[in-house]
Amino acid sequence: LEAILPNGEIIQTGGKYVKVSTGYDLTQLLVGSEGTLAVVTKAILKLLPRPKAKITLFAPFKDLNDGIRAVPFILKSGVIPVTIEFLEKLGFNAMEDYTGRKVPIRERVRDEAEAFLIIVLEGKSSEEALRDSEFISDVCMKHGAIDIFIPPTERAGRELLDLREKAYYAAKDAGATDLVDIVVPRGEIPKFVEQIHEISAKYATVIAGAGHAGDGNVHLAILEQDADKLSMILKEIYMVGKNLGGTISAEHGIGSEKRRFLLEMEDKAKIELMRRIKKAFDPNNILNPGKIF
Amino acid sequence: LEAILPNGEIIQTGGKYVKVSTGYDLTQLLVGSEGTLAVVTKAILKLLPRPKAKITLFAPFKDLNDGIRAVPFILKSGVIPVTIEFLEKLGFNAMEDYTGRKVPIRERVRDEAEAFLIIVLEGKSSEEALRDSEFISDVCMKHGAIDIFIPPTERAGRELLDLREKAYYAAKDAGATDLVDIVVPRGEIPKFVEQIHEISAKYATVIAGAGHAGDGNVHLAILEQDADKLSMILKEIYMVGKNLGGTISAEHGIGSEKRRFLLEMEDKAKIELMRRIKKAFDPNNILNPGKIF
Repeated sequence: LEAILPNGEIIQTGGKYVKVSTGYDLTQLLVGSEGTLAVVTKAILKLLPRPKAKITLFAPFKDLNDGIRAVPFILKSGVIPVTIEFLEKLGFNAMEDYTGRKVPIRERVRDEAEAFLIIVLEGKSSEEALRDSEFISDVCMKHGAIDIFIPPTERAGRELLDLREKAYYAAKDAGATDLVDIVVPRGEIPKFVEQIHEISAKYATVIAGAGHAGDGNVHLAILEQDADKLSMILKEIYMVGKNLGGTISAEHGIGSEKRRFLLEMEDKAKIELMRRIKKAFDPNNILNPGKIF
Repeated sequence: LEAILPNGEIIQTGGKYVKVSTGYDLTQLLVGSEGTLAVVTKAILKLLPRPKAKITLFAPFKDLNDGIRAVPFILKSGVIPVTIEFLEKLGFNAMEDYTGRKVPIRERVRDEAEAFLIIVLEGKSSEEALRDSEFISDVCMKHGAIDIFIPPTERAGRELLDLREKAYYAAKDAGATDLVDIVVPRGEIPKFVEQIHEISAKYATVIAGAGHAGDGNVHLAILEQDADKLSMILKEIYMVGKNLGGTISAEHGIGSEKRRFLLEMEDKAKIELMRRIKKAFDPNNILNPGKIF
């Protein structure tokens, strides 16, 4: 990274190497600091070779527990997918409605399924990707999938994934007022979602879940218009996540919206330490003031 | 991580998740801080599934340039080895002498070869590993390898790698007074080693190289007994590395030995920033004083 410090000095962190132990890791400290430590003016990224082949699997399950429980078996199988997404029926239906596209699964399966996994595999050749997809299909069927649908072309696979990517817009369109970005240990997703359903029932508010099952990142669309109720719901959700070993934000950061929850829930000693780091970089608090802390 | 701060407070950083953006990344800041920021009392690591199959390739080249130039082609081929090590003849001979084991390569190849790559591949099955090893052998032969030797068993492969791992002891045994741990962009390894040969000739000192070609980390054994001369040699080596975009330490850290070189060569603004971070954690400088800075 190239970054400008609040005193106007320019630093370069990291370099064109994959291993370094020369002093503190300033790169990782700047990444995710949301502009509170320095202004990043250049970032050089590593490119990975483009995979030769890609296959998308769509696996419906009778309930979310079954779907999530299949994930560790997938991850332990030796074939590591690049993406494992999960969807609850509520979100799936909303996305089909929003995009006006229907995933071509059998009607019987559609009636039975309460949750879905979308799994993307990459391979060095289409033969390898095909072999891996058969292997992962077996793992899914052995661990509760009702059926497996493999889009016939890469393009159809991308469309399926695109459906999942539209979750945000579908949720916004449906009137979601907050989109939670919590992360929990991936084995805890079923427990987390179960408790979210209880919160949803308690407050009589629609909460639809979708997320990255491969990394424990759960997004929830909360359809609650009352600000006080929303705030109570959010606090309960974050507490559930925290008690399961998770944390408030997986990929979108704290900003000003989640600031209150961070300060309330995070360990005081850590917050204090982060404030001192902030001060070490920016003693006059001129960079993105009011964010994170 | 669980870590104790200098004021006695205990913090936990990170968690059982693969993605997080809740405040600053304290885990990466503590990793590599050499005990100067906190005392790490617990570290929970992620385990990767053990690969089903492993194949080691030994590729002799006419010179180091050829060997190193093959590396980017290997890395771009789509088959990513877990290890790519390089050895110069000098180091190779020393290791064979030290271990008393001879790598079974043909005499003609042994005479011609000036450098070697040791490449380790892992696969989900022995068929896959075999396919990949044939593929990588072709890439090596196409890019200058004189021959390819594949140990017939996994055990023989481990022994070959073990030979490389003995470099440290072989160098110590031969009278090495310093073992450089520099990192340069991996494409710059040939230029780096070439300039090291010039330094070696200039000071009439044996400098033997071996390293991790896959990540640009070069270890040099310097057989120089005169402390002043050693210091001049080291400074020249670090300057060469720096000018090629590298840095002083790849994996062993700064400690007290490399402190002087760090302070002399590293950007002043960065050193000052690191000192302020150190102060934010440890205002009374009670943790590992005198290390790094």
